[in-house]
Amino acid sequence: MGCVQSFRELCDRQKNTNVRKSLPAVCIVWQTAMIILFGVFIRYNEEADPHWVEHRHTNNISSDIENDFYYRYPSFQDVHVMIFVGFGFLMTFLKRYSFGAVGFNFLIAAFGLQWALLMQGWFHSLDYTDGKIKIGVESMINADFCVAGCLIAYGAVLGKVSAVQLLVMTLFGVTLFAVEEYIILNVVHARDAGGSMVIHTFGAYYGLSISWMLYRPNLDQSDRLHGSVYHSDVFAMIGTLFLWMFWPSLNSAITDHGDGQHRAAINTYLALAATVLTTVAISSLFQKHGKLDMVHIQNSTLAGGVAVGTAAEFMLMPYGALIVGFCCGIISTLGYVYLTPFMEKYLKIQDMCGIHNLHAMPGVIGGIVGAITAASATESVYGVEGLINTFDFEKDFKDMVPSRQGGHQAAGLCVALCFGVGGGIAVGKFKKFTTDMINHVENGSIRESCFNVYE
Amino acid sequence: MGCVQSFRELCDRQKNTNVRKSLPAVCIVWQTAMIILFGVFIRYNEEADPHWVEHRHTNNISSDIENDFYYRYPSFQDVHVMIFVGFGFLMTFLKRYSFGAVGFNFLIAAFGLQWALLMQGWFHSLDYTDGKIKIGVESMINADFCVAGCLIAYGAVLGKVSAVQLLVMTLFGVTLFAVEEYIILNVVHARDAGGSMVIHTFGAYYGLSISWMLYRPNLDQSDRLHGSVYHSDVFAMIGTLFLWMFWPSLNSAITDHGDGQHRAAINTYLALAATVLTTVAISSLFQKHGKLDMVHIQNSTLAGGVAVGTAAEFMLMPYGALIVGFCCGIISTLGYVYLTPFMEKYLKIQDMCGIHNLHAMPGVIGGIVGAITAASATESVYGVEGLINTFDFEKDFKDMVPSRQGGHQAAGLCVALCFGVGGGIAVGKFKKFTTDMINHVENGSIRESCFNVYE
Amino acid sequence: MGCVQSFRELCDRQKNTNVRKSLPAVCIVWQTAMIILFGVFIRYNEEADPHWVEHRHTNNISSDIENDFYYRYPSFQDVHVMIFVGFGFLMTFLKRYSFGAVGFNFLIAAFGLQWALLMQGWFHSLDYTDGKIKIGVESMINADFCVAGCLIAYGAVLGKVSAVQLLVMTLFGVTLFAVEEYIILNVVHARDAGGSMVIHTFGAYYGLSISWMLYRPNLDQSDRLHGSVYHSDVFAMIGTLFLWMFWPSLNSAITDHGDGQHRAAINTYLALAATVLTTVAISSLFQKHGKLDMVHIQNSTLAGGVAVGTAAEFMLMPYGALIVGFCCGIISTLGYVYLTPFMEKYLKIQDMCGIHNLHAMPGVIGGIVGAITAASATESVYGVEGLINTFDFEKDFKDMVPSRQGGHQAAGLCVALCFGVGGGIAVGKFKKFTTDMINHVENGSIRESCFNVYE
Repeated sequence: MGCVQSFRELCDRQKNTNVRKSLPAVCIVWQTAMIILFGVFIRYNEEADPHWVEHRHTNNISSDIENDFYYRYPSFQDVHVMIFVGFGFLMTFLKRYSFGAVGFNFLIAAFGLQWALLMQGWFHSLDYTDGKIKIGVESMINADFCVAGCLIAYGAVLGKVSAVQLLVMTLFGVTLFAVEEYIILNVVHARDAGGSMVIHTFGAYYGLSISWMLYRPNLDQSDRLHGSVYHSDVFAMIGTLFLWMFWPSLNSAITDHGDGQHRAAINTYLALAATVLTTVAISSLFQKHGKLDMVHIQNSTLAGGVAVGTAAEFMLMPYGALIVGFCCGIISTLGYVYLTPFMEKYLKIQDMCGIHNLHAMPGVIGGIVGAITAASATESVYGVEGLINTFDFEKDFKDMVPSRQGGHQAAGLCVALCFGVGGGIAVGKFKKFTTDMINHVENGSIRESCFNVYE
Repeated sequence: MGCVQSFRELCDRQKNTNVRKSLPAVCIVWQTAMIILFGVFIRYNEEADPHWVEHRHTNNISSDIENDFYYRYPSFQDVHVMIFVGFGFLMTFLKRYSFGAVGFNFLIAAFGLQWALLMQGWFHSLDYTDGKIKIGVESMINADFCVAGCLIAYGAVLGKVSAVQLLVMTLFGVTLFAVEEYIILNVVHARDAGGSMVIHTFGAYYGLSISWMLYRPNLDQSDRLHGSVYHSDVFAMIGTLFLWMFWPSLNSAITDHGDGQHRAAINTYLALAATVLTTVAISSLFQKHGKLDMVHIQNSTLAGGVAVGTAAEFMLMPYGALIVGFCCGIISTLGYVYLTPFMEKYLKIQDMCGIHNLHAMPGVIGGIVGAITAASATESVYGVEGLINTFDFEKDFKDMVPSRQGGHQAAGLCVALCFGVGGGIAVGKFKKFTTDMINHVENGSIRESCFNVYE
Repeated sequence: MGCVQSFRELCDRQKNTNVRKSLPAVCIVWQTAMIILFGVFIRYNEEADPHWVEHRHTNNISSDIENDFYYRYPSFQDVHVMIFVGFGFLMTFLKRYSFGAVGFNFLIAAFGLQWALLMQGWFHSLDYTDGKIKIGVESMINADFCVAGCLIAYGAVLGKVSAVQLLVMTLFGVTLFAVEEYIILNVVHARDAGGSMVIHTFGAYYGLSISWMLYRPNLDQSDRLHGSVYHSDVFAMIGTLFLWMFWPSLNSAITDHGDGQHRAAINTYLALAATVLTTVAISSLFQKHGKLDMVHIQNSTLAGGVAVGTAAEFMLMPYGALIVGFCCGIISTLGYVYLTPFMEKYLKIQDMCGIHNLHAMPGVIGGIVGAITAASATESVYGVEGLINTFDFEKDFKDMVPSRQGGHQAAGLCVALCFGVGGGIAVGKFKKFTTDMINHVENGSIRESCFNVYE
């Protein structure tokens, strides 16, 4: 016994020595690389540059208030809260992994948003006249969106991976995201304001595929159930509520000025409200003694926001939003009851936070709802100009019609699925990564192995 | 003993079976009803509709930034946070009722806002040309306001009612609210930007009357005192602070564009600051050894925001706002010290969260302050146009004068009181409801009987 | 033993009697004074006054949306959250001092903002035509900024001072702040949008000097280490994250409309992201077994926001912001590892929250970065008009050139340092104050001596 003990200690010391070197090294080197790349590539766009005054005069803009900052900054801050407090606290439910949930969420989001500004910049806002990426408030929102995809993936492997592994996951995740997003939005010309496909479907399948590659039988599902304590579940509710409340801002953050943002906020607000009721209904129906399960309340209540992401800016109509929310609350909660245990037992996919129920399924539904809503758009409902604005039937796509747009939306969903599953498998197969990760989880226990805990 | 035990278990099983059926049934049926009613009645208003581009041209609106969305959306999000995090966490102070506080708050708010959109829509934004309710960002704010009234009422009966009973309370509460609001704002033509009368006075007396109807001697006040633990009181401070910080947004959310919103925010900011100091003073003065009581800090510090609700948009003047805050901090804290125990002992009204001190008394004060401020308005202070804008002396009321407006404000307060007390008694008398509720509270203990608690 | 015990009890009773009288007395008297002073001096400015409609016509302002309220209110609310939730919860890490951290933070901020409106008003917005201070949304932001300085100082003496002493510290702190701010911004003509010098350097040295004057050997550093429990550290993360997320709003809240606010937000966003990575790196490198320390994650991750405060509105460039964040994460974390123990042991300065690492050093760096960035400004980068707008080269300073502006910035930093150190020593020497404070800390223990704790 003593021998085993000391061998373990040896391993531990070994591992800790590696961590001691590798985490600082990765952070310093990658951050230095960011500085260099930002120095070469990134500049302010014309709305954040002191030449704005002249730009205003040239473009006949009557007032400073028409700077895009004032259209989007409040939404940006709401999205920012969702990324750091929302996702961070949503994952604090584990009894002894609150530091890791909030802390690593913080770390990978802070790295991810820098890399996202570069990757998305190269694809979307490269100024060919001087070879620079011009950033503004919309770039910051998009970077946060991109990070969201990686944080969703983190939910699948919560407690099972080290900080360095998470940073690697984020590096590849952001890269894949930017390519996928470019293909969906620019090549396929699908619209996806709230990212049902681009963010949620991609992020969830990316995380689940990695988790599948890393299946560890020791870490059984009982950890999930026994893992929360009373107060950690209350902390998780902070995450849930900030995500729930600010979801209308997420879905409307980068939609068209005016009616676009307005409508997206209304639709999301309604879909989320409906989801809460059906989540409670199903949770009560399928738990013993009709009691409610906090896991469902924490997660499934958000499914409506995911599912309405693509169609939020379309004429989904208020009742349409309610229907989407209604269905997603049911499907997502049933997922927690039946699908998550099934996936673990038979498919060997562990899903710590149940992201398949919260992001994957609602994301796919969101893509389908978007395709249907787009395909059924008519000029009488949108108006001539409204139709062009809403679906961006301009430039190369000025001959597009709604029915074809529906097909393009469906194609976009397929791209997101392929990138998620394919990318996740590729990253999961990355050998060194896997080996490390397996070493990391000893005896299947989830604990704050990376934090000093005084107690 | 064993016999009693098994009889209790039987009752429990019986009750649980009912809950198991009734909560899901109510949620699913009511949500389905919402979908149908929304399908029949609710559409986007012209600022959230794709025809907005054409609307802009027709109405000569120069820029998208003048869409009401940009005037009100940041305030809406702050109000939204108050409803879900503010009210939810404020009630988490009980040792073993944090799930219920946050979770049921979430459920009834999510249902209430849908029903409020319909009820308020029928009264306020029905388009007679096509029989549809047209919603926009202001409707969402108003729905949140309406829900606030019901959440205040929840505070009186915290821990004593089941989810279904709360939903019933909310259904009737929202209905009464919409009628009362219509009478006060449109018939009586009182102004009530922050809802001192419409929201707080109504909501508090509605809740207290229900609590009075349901008096249970077993559930004595000691539960309140022994009910909190250290960390649950810290959680409650999250609720307090988010309510306190965002109250300026609540009081300014639906006031007039420009100076109206600006002034309402300033007045509320000042009133709340003054309240904090007098609350601390009185709490320290009346507690043994001069120690502060967290219950006072959590609740009475908010009284100034309630009391300044009606007059916030008027020329209350900065010192006026401070005076209102000063008085309310004192009155509200004294209420916790003397009035709450008195009400329980002699009037048989249990008030779990002390809503009489936080909402009822400050709400009435707010109504009176509003009446006085309105009655003393002059053209020299407001300007000719300013007076008309601030008090809406237009259309049917274009011959109104400030002194008469003061009378109308007072009349509005009476309407709120009548609806609160009358409505609460009626709902409380609703027999089946009462019986259920009495069964629900066994041995006067407050615990998470509706949630799965692993520990 | 019994004798000592009873003597202590006597002292305790004595002290408590004083507290019982002094805290209520101070709160009531000071608040009354505020009401009188507000009555004499404070009025709404033209954008919050009902004459705004006429003001609009006179000044040819086309729309209500150009009211400053819509430019700054969302930022104001974010700053407000930083002050009350951010600073309040950041200090909840101590096991048995969460009430004091959140509660006293609340109290002194509520008093401080009123006094700040007066003090800053006399210096900055006094209308000489009628002798009144005209307040609007920008005044509220500035009052919150001023309060921030005092809350930073509170961090140095956390748990060691009573509520009355904190109020005295705040009274003098706000007064000194207003004078210092006037000298730096108006006399020296330095720019300091995010307050690296005005707020952070001043506030931190003010607090540290007071702490130095009050050195108590009994209260040793071990209290800091043993003082946190698992959940209190999670509460502190709420504070950290809200500060981190909303820092872009703080640095951009009072900068120029348009590109100024836009650029300040981008720079702060980037600097903070870089800080997270280097903080994690250094924390892992210097802790045993490469584990992360929550104290570093909670505090040092914010240093980048402090250090970018002055230069955020200048053309710091995105990579410049990253470099500043990079360095500050390293310096701040090293400060926690080496400097705080050193200061306590050799300099007899106790720094409970490590404000020297979070505010003092990054503040000074921010001042220097600001001076360098200003000195290297050119017309080609800023444009003719942009240069004038950004640095306010108008009126008395219309002949200013960037290189001289750099000197003025450096001079501003010196003023902040002098006021901080000098003011702190003066207040700390204030005899009665010191004696009280020493009595207050018995046996060097930090506990909720001022709050009723039921448990």
